[in-house]
Amino acid sequence: MRSDTDIASLLDRFAHGSVAAAARLITILEDGGAGAETVMDGVFPRTRGAYRVGFTGPPGAGKSSLVYRLARLFRAGGKELGIIAVDPTSPFSGGALLGDRVRMQKLADDPGVFVRSLASRGSLGGISNCTDEVADLLDAFGKELVFIETVGVGQSELEIAEKTHTVVVVLVPESGDGVQAMKAGLMEIGDIFVMNKADHPDAIRAARDLEDTLRIKDMPCGSWMPPVVLASALEEKGIDEIAGRIEEHRRHLEAHGLLDAKRRRILYSRVRDAFMERMERRIWDNVNVRRLIEGKMEEVYSGRMSPTRLVVELEKLFASTLGM
Amino acid sequence: MRSDTDIASLLDRFAHGSVAAAARLITILEDGGAGAETVMDGVFPRTRGAYRVGFTGPPGAGKSSLVYRLARLFRAGGKELGIIAVDPTSPFSGGALLGDRVRMQKLADDPGVFVRSLASRGSLGGISNCTDEVADLLDAFGKELVFIETVGVGQSELEIAEKTHTVVVVLVPESGDGVQAMKAGLMEIGDIFVMNKADHPDAIRAARDLEDTLRIKDMPCGSWMPPVVLASALEEKGIDEIAGRIEEHRRHLEAHGLLDAKRRRILYSRVRDAFMERMERRIWDNVNVRRLIEGKMEEVYSGRMSPTRLVVELEKLFASTLGM
Repeated sequence: MRSDTDIASLLDRFAHGSVAAAARLITILEDGGAGAETVMDGVFPRTRGAYRVGFTGPPGAGKSSLVYRLARLFRAGGKELGIIAVDPTSPFSGGALLGDRVRMQKLADDPGVFVRSLASRGSLGGISNCTDEVADLLDAFGKELVFIETVGVGQSELEIAEKTHTVVVVLVPESGDGVQAMKAGLMEIGDIFVMNKADHPDAIRAARDLEDTLRIKDMPCGSWMPPVVLASALEEKGIDEIAGRIEEHRRHLEAHGLLDAKRRRILYSRVRDAFMERMERRIWDNVNVRRLIEGKMEEVYSGRMSPTRLVVELEKLFASTLGM
Repeated sequence: MRSDTDIASLLDRFAHGSVAAAARLITILEDGGAGAETVMDGVFPRTRGAYRVGFTGPPGAGKSSLVYRLARLFRAGGKELGIIAVDPTSPFSGGALLGDRVRMQKLADDPGVFVRSLASRGSLGGISNCTDEVADLLDAFGKELVFIETVGVGQSELEIAEKTHTVVVVLVPESGDGVQAMKAGLMEIGDIFVMNKADHPDAIRAARDLEDTLRIKDMPCGSWMPPVVLASALEEKGIDEIAGRIEEHRRHLEAHGLLDAKRRRILYSRVRDAFMERMERRIWDNVNVRRLIEGKMEEVYSGRMSPTRLVVELEKLFASTLGM
């Protein structure tokens, strides 16, 4: 635990552009607790509305390579860039996933890019709890664009839509035909679809199927029609087009007055989720609550009372205590 | 909304083996609310500890076909069987997914099998809220085995481990090499791994990679070592072995006194999750809570207060109100 003085001095160096201070502040954000709250007090007022782009899609679709190519392209255009890569933490992961990140590290030599890997929440996927905070920090550090790359597993795919302004869904021909993508729930969150590995013999057909599937949905007039881009991160094909589509989507949001609404919605759902998570922990960690529930569980274990009935009774009990 | 008298009469017919009554009771469970609570009061005390097997894995891995083949095999052995298939609800899904289920319907002619599709919670994957209740109902209806097949998307993969006694993870060679499976978080929840499409040229190598990856994890002596079974649902290969492994896993749990502990854990986490979900809704739906948060959001929107700080303040406020 760092003292507030330490944090104040780190924040001061951060405000003067120290990369080392930024990295240490992120570690404090990852640790959470009171330190993270103090860091955010200093960081949040300095945010300048960096544009956030989420990258998701099944594992192995080539998200990391694509993010790397796009980062290089935006850097060539002079954009200051932050990249957050969410890695799974798993007893199985060993070092096997680190290979994906080696390429990213090459970007780290460029002071215009800040790359940070975050461990996913729990071992089973999901986005790191502090993703929003780290994105704020990169924003406050002067990054104009923040890329967030998920592991493409569990809730992470869906959560990314609540954290970013543009969602890029990366698919590959094998995994990516219309029905599979639809099943994966990705169709509803993507603003831009990338059919990666364009050299695959099925790529064109897969991209066309995807377009057909996207057209099934009724869209109000003037709404954004998600494009499907054929690309190859390895052969650097289609990267310009993806970059162009990201810019186009951003202009679309701005032109329709949607960007500010989206910013507000992102902040609101962030407060709601974090608040509910804390309330949940507080209720469940309460000794009296636990004792009551554990006592009542015996009736459920023995089959005398249904779990459903117990939940209703518990809810009534708490609601009357809370006067709600 | 049905009256309690209607439900009582349905429960009576259900107790006498009426399939139509069972189907109507499931619909009431799907609707939720007070009707579902009354149904569960009648159903839960009749449960006899049916063995629950979950099937998960990426979309397109062939879970439905495998469940169909296994169901036929267990039926041939005289087992009474219930099958719950969780389907995604999506504006994109149209009727495209129904094809997967056509095969299942063939089973419906056999009175020893009860097949039911449930819509997933929300549109973006996840297990239906009433999966546990429907499994109880099938159990109370005399089914000895209940199969639960997920869409293999979002949280459903992970939730299934909290609802079943044995988890079968179905993979295919293309999606299924060690690293991908590891990324998918599936390695930690599988009790049995099936490498489906065994006729694929990469199947044997993929199965071996998977076995190697599974051995990375340190296991205490005497614990269950998840087997990898090569199978082909289409060509009916490996189905006997999967059935045998399911039985073997069950015997392992029983021999080590783990089955009862698992049953209790399943019930406990079910009560906890349902209770927290209701509390969450109650807190968030409270007009005063909403008004307070929405008022404070202006400070966040304008950048004066960090979302993190607002959450801390809200938590303090509620904790003191609740006296926790």
